[in-house]
Amino acid sequence: MARPQTDIEAGRKLLLTTVEKLVRARGAADISMTELAAEAGMSPSNIYRFFESKEALLEAVAEDWFADKIAVMEDVVASNLKVPEKMLAFFARRFALMCRRYEDDPELFKSFCELGDRHFEVVRGYVDLGDHYLAMIVAEAMEAGYFQGLSIDQCVSLINQMVFPYVNPNSLMMIMHNLSEEKLSVIIGTIFSGLNSNHAHAEIKNLIRMTPS
Amino acid sequence: MARPQTDIEAGRKLLLTTVEKLVRARGAADISMTELAAEAGMSPSNIYRFFESKEALLEAVAEDWFADKIAVMEDVVASNLKVPEKMLAFFARRFALMCRRYEDDPELFKSFCELGDRHFEVVRGYVDLGDHYLAMIVAEAMEAGYFQGLSIDQCVSLINQMVFPYVNPNSLMMIMHNLSEEKLSVIIGTIFSGLNSNHAHAEIKNLIRMTPS
Repeated sequence: MARPQTDIEAGRKLLLTTVEKLVRARGAADISMTELAAEAGMSPSNIYRFFESKEALLEAVAEDWFADKIAVMEDVVASNLKVPEKMLAFFARRFALMCRRYEDDPELFKSFCELGDRHFEVVRGYVDLGDHYLAMIVAEAMEAGYFQGLSIDQCVSLINQMVFPYVNPNSLMMIMHNLSEEKLSVIIGTIFSGLNSNHAHAEIKNLIRMTPS
Repeated sequence: MARPQTDIEAGRKLLLTTVEKLVRARGAADISMTELAAEAGMSPSNIYRFFESKEALLEAVAEDWFADKIAVMEDVVASNLKVPEKMLAFFARRFALMCRRYEDDPELFKSFCELGDRHFEVVRGYVDLGDHYLAMIVAEAMEAGYFQGLSIDQCVSLINQMVFPYVNPNSLMMIMHNLSEEKLSVIIGTIFSGLNSNHAHAEIKNLIRMTPS
């Protein structure tokens, strides 16, 4: 029974390639299943053999887009690196992947980011998965004595904020010329050496309430 | 000769209010000087008495938009706060201003951000001014022994990256629900306690080159 499965796989692959072709040609404009079928030389009803709904199609597009990042995250989490190096690799390798993809085709990268923003319900699972893997690294760091007095969730949130432009593709595009692996390594080092609960500033409300004279 | 000056000021103020009204009504769509004059009840030629060009108008809009942030930065830099508290106030008070303005009218805030992105040449001077004030605080911190082994420019760039979502209005809107003054205070504390040149990771290239199996 291998033939039908192969047929389905080939049809899906053709449709995903066609989505990329359409996004390349006209940006992040919405694509209907009918248009996609026509562009791929299929009948409108035939396309539903491969993707049962528009949502299923978008999920496959996202799966394709995130596949290499997930492979990197799994690989890093399973590695024997010491925990600061592990966290650096976790962010630096995905940053390198995104830069490479952006440089391959800046307009296509931008269009896929716009698509992702518009269909965030499809992307959310991948963001959560990234947080899940980061939480595993944070837990390992805590066992080694880092991040004292903070919870895993607090650390995940604070670390994501401190490396935000290296992770968020929209911000990455905005200030790419200022980002570098070297700076990221200093930031991760700063996090391991400085992040703990001693810094919650008790007088912050007073600092903020001071009004300009 | 006070009368004509007052007249000019009043005309400018009317036109700036009219710009805000138009942006509120139709978003960040481009506004022509002719449309603006009509909306303000002026003749197309009369508007040039107040702003000699579209560029001069946009500069006045930006000046208006950044006025309170600049007042805050000047006030903080001139204050007698200890340097970690000074840097926290420098970022936290502008963050509070942006949140307040966003909450007042999210759509208007978004439209002004889009306008700023589209006319970045007008905004750039204000970004540079922010960096200039931050550099003054960094220099003060270095005199107090912080940030060893790094240059002022390196520190300004790294610190801007670590607080990016608290400073960049587009990122701020994107993850506002995750941002807080308390987290910002932990981040600034982490910077003061952990940022120095010991963290430039020599083996970063090897960490990045590892490919997923």
